[in-house]
Amino acid sequence: MPPFEVPEGDPFGSHNLPYGVFSTSGSTERRVGVRLGDHVLDAGAAALALGSPYASLLARPTLNPLLAAGRTAWSDVRRALTAWVTVPGHRETLAPLLHPLPEVTLHLPFEVADYVDFYASENHARNAGRIFRPDAADPLTPNWKHLPIGYHGRAGTVVVSGTDVVRPSGQRKAPSDPAPVFGPSGRLDIEAEVGFVVGTPSQQGRPVALGDFREHVFGLCLLNDWSARDLQAWEYVPLGPFLGKSFATSVSAWITPLDALEEARIAPPGRTHPLLPYLDDAADEPAGYDLRISIAINGHTVSEPPFSTMYWTAAQQLAHLTVNGASLRTGDLYGSGTVSGAEPGERGSLLELTWNGRDPLELPDGKRTYLEDGDVVTLSGWAPGPGGSRIGLGEVRGRIVTG
Amino acid sequence: MPPFEVPEGDPFGSHNLPYGVFSTSGSTERRVGVRLGDHVLDAGAAALALGSPYASLLARPTLNPLLAAGRTAWSDVRRALTAWVTVPGHRETLAPLLHPLPEVTLHLPFEVADYVDFYASENHARNAGRIFRPDAADPLTPNWKHLPIGYHGRAGTVVVSGTDVVRPSGQRKAPSDPAPVFGPSGRLDIEAEVGFVVGTPSQQGRPVALGDFREHVFGLCLLNDWSARDLQAWEYVPLGPFLGKSFATSVSAWITPLDALEEARIAPPGRTHPLLPYLDDAADEPAGYDLRISIAINGHTVSEPPFSTMYWTAAQQLAHLTVNGASLRTGDLYGSGTVSGAEPGERGSLLELTWNGRDPLELPDGKRTYLEDGDVVTLSGWAPGPGGSRIGLGEVRGRIVTG
Repeated sequence: MPPFEVPEGDPFGSHNLPYGVFSTSGSTERRVGVRLGDHVLDAGAAALALGSPYASLLARPTLNPLLAAGRTAWSDVRRALTAWVTVPGHRETLAPLLHPLPEVTLHLPFEVADYVDFYASENHARNAGRIFRPDAADPLTPNWKHLPIGYHGRAGTVVVSGTDVVRPSGQRKAPSDPAPVFGPSGRLDIEAEVGFVVGTPSQQGRPVALGDFREHVFGLCLLNDWSARDLQAWEYVPLGPFLGKSFATSVSAWITPLDALEEARIAPPGRTHPLLPYLDDAADEPAGYDLRISIAINGHTVSEPPFSTMYWTAAQQLAHLTVNGASLRTGDLYGSGTVSGAEPGERGSLLELTWNGRDPLELPDGKRTYLEDGDVVTLSGWAPGPGGSRIGLGEVRGRIVTG
Repeated sequence: MPPFEVPEGDPFGSHNLPYGVFSTSGSTERRVGVRLGDHVLDAGAAALALGSPYASLLARPTLNPLLAAGRTAWSDVRRALTAWVTVPGHRETLAPLLHPLPEVTLHLPFEVADYVDFYASENHARNAGRIFRPDAADPLTPNWKHLPIGYHGRAGTVVVSGTDVVRPSGQRKAPSDPAPVFGPSGRLDIEAEVGFVVGTPSQQGRPVALGDFREHVFGLCLLNDWSARDLQAWEYVPLGPFLGKSFATSVSAWITPLDALEEARIAPPGRTHPLLPYLDDAADEPAGYDLRISIAINGHTVSEPPFSTMYWTAAQQLAHLTVNGASLRTGDLYGSGTVSGAEPGERGSLLELTWNGRDPLELPDGKRTYLEDGDVVTLSGWAPGPGGSRIGLGEVRGRIVTG
């Protein structure tokens, strides 16, 4: 009998094993944990109890040492963990190291180095272009099909799921206003994204090739890139989004290793424009991921964005990010950009879902154009796993509070 | 007799005392040092030798513990250091802890948390607007006089003075090109800036008021925000600069504490537009700094940008950066933006100095539009100090090399 039993079909079964960092009520000590059903296994304590050589990577207060250990170590550790939780004989040793999820506090699982946000959904970029530049002949800017557009965000305000989000204040100016006004954002939005977590660093001056994606990226998580549309609209020309985004970015407490997502790999959409060699993945293994995302406001599902529709892959984003010689550090995080499918019910932001407020959503508790104080936004998701199973992605939850 | 004698008029006399991190040839151990003339005092060893309570802040491999200690500690430590190097009696103790500059290796003095770059020189913004948007009625965007425009840059590629800069490659597309092309940047540029280093952190959701600038910012340094203009021009619409900037940003090895720059404080230029209250400094102490910067290429001075002309102050930048609730961390770095005066010989970039290549500079070793491989760029500077003295700013040097 394996040490833990997870109900058949649980998306957090032993085929998943995402990593996080937790503490228990009796202690402030942070520990690396692995999620199994609705429990957390204290992975460091398990490694120590079983005399595993991986204790040096797992008995730590953050995932960074594991992230830095590199791809071979990631696979070896995952293989060991899989054995511990599936091979009979460890029940007595490991049962005391299993904590029910409601009894632990989950923390930001790694120290974020740099945070970059991309803009890789063609549907999202077209919708945003139509809304913000209604007079433009093409809603996509001329560069969009040639490179994965991205920009740096604020690493210091990346927070773990469950953290309240204070509604930001700032300047805004509607075209009809004679001068900018100051106050709380009136157009606070969601951006449903997938975040990629870099493990293995790279050297400054040395680009990372498309094919080396798996050597550097450890795993992924859901990410909500909260956006204040009114602040953003006034500030973003000519140097891009700043305060409209920098107040908070929420990530899941659980990082799903890419090794758990082999069955979810798919080809990205067909490319409509030829790509420069450093971005051309036509001959490569499929580098897209079939992730199904769900956005709920106060428990009511408002959209189901399909990650499979993303034009640019995470591998292309990494190759682009480093092609100028920019180095990677352990803990670098990059967001895919808002995930929006082709259908109205697949859009990843309220900007698109309500067409910038023109078409309010009808929720059980009233209409919504943008987020109201007290609203709780939850992103959840899953990917196809082995044998028809599901690999659950850790949820990202955040409640809007007044400043 | 004081323990060290610095020649009369030396800009790194005991009235300056900037902080850095160094190692000696006999050891890889990094130590906090204080510059005195052309020597470095091992500040941690001095604190230990003298039984100072500040050893816990100074006997460290980075400035971060000192930065985190807060404004009172910054002043106390500076007062102690000043006493050590000026009061007779310490010569025997401290002389062995003094290392000639040519014999030490200088390191990045602090761990950079987030890096933000502003755009605060009106002359620079007008020049850039005229060059990039020649058909626009106003070279300044409508928001420019209402908020200090900024964006996040890459913290992981901030390097210390003396580090070679690999010429970045990337995509570019001239308007006449049918499709983008890939290759080394042909328009590699300088941006002469001043960087501000945050010590005391702040809480997410709590803006930092204009008047609290000195509680949070420890000091400043010269900064070269290397820019690949051709990469930038193709990528930056709609989300701002990315690969055109992220390959490298060079900072001085010496951080000048704001406490050393009291005599350099001046009023910023008169404001032409009313400011929202969180940015309105009309009633405040002067928050500008009179810093004189010099840019040299291969030892030949090409420009002398005056920091006194900056429209937005560092205090306004900090208030703006946090007004949406974005938190500060110890080690946050923000650049002023390119410093350009009103005169042609005061411009802080080759973009402006050569008007985007139209008017090459005549250097002793030939014409320059943008930087060539092998070029060494040096930023240096000083500020008025007590009694007519000069406070030297640590230089920022970088050589362009091929990838």
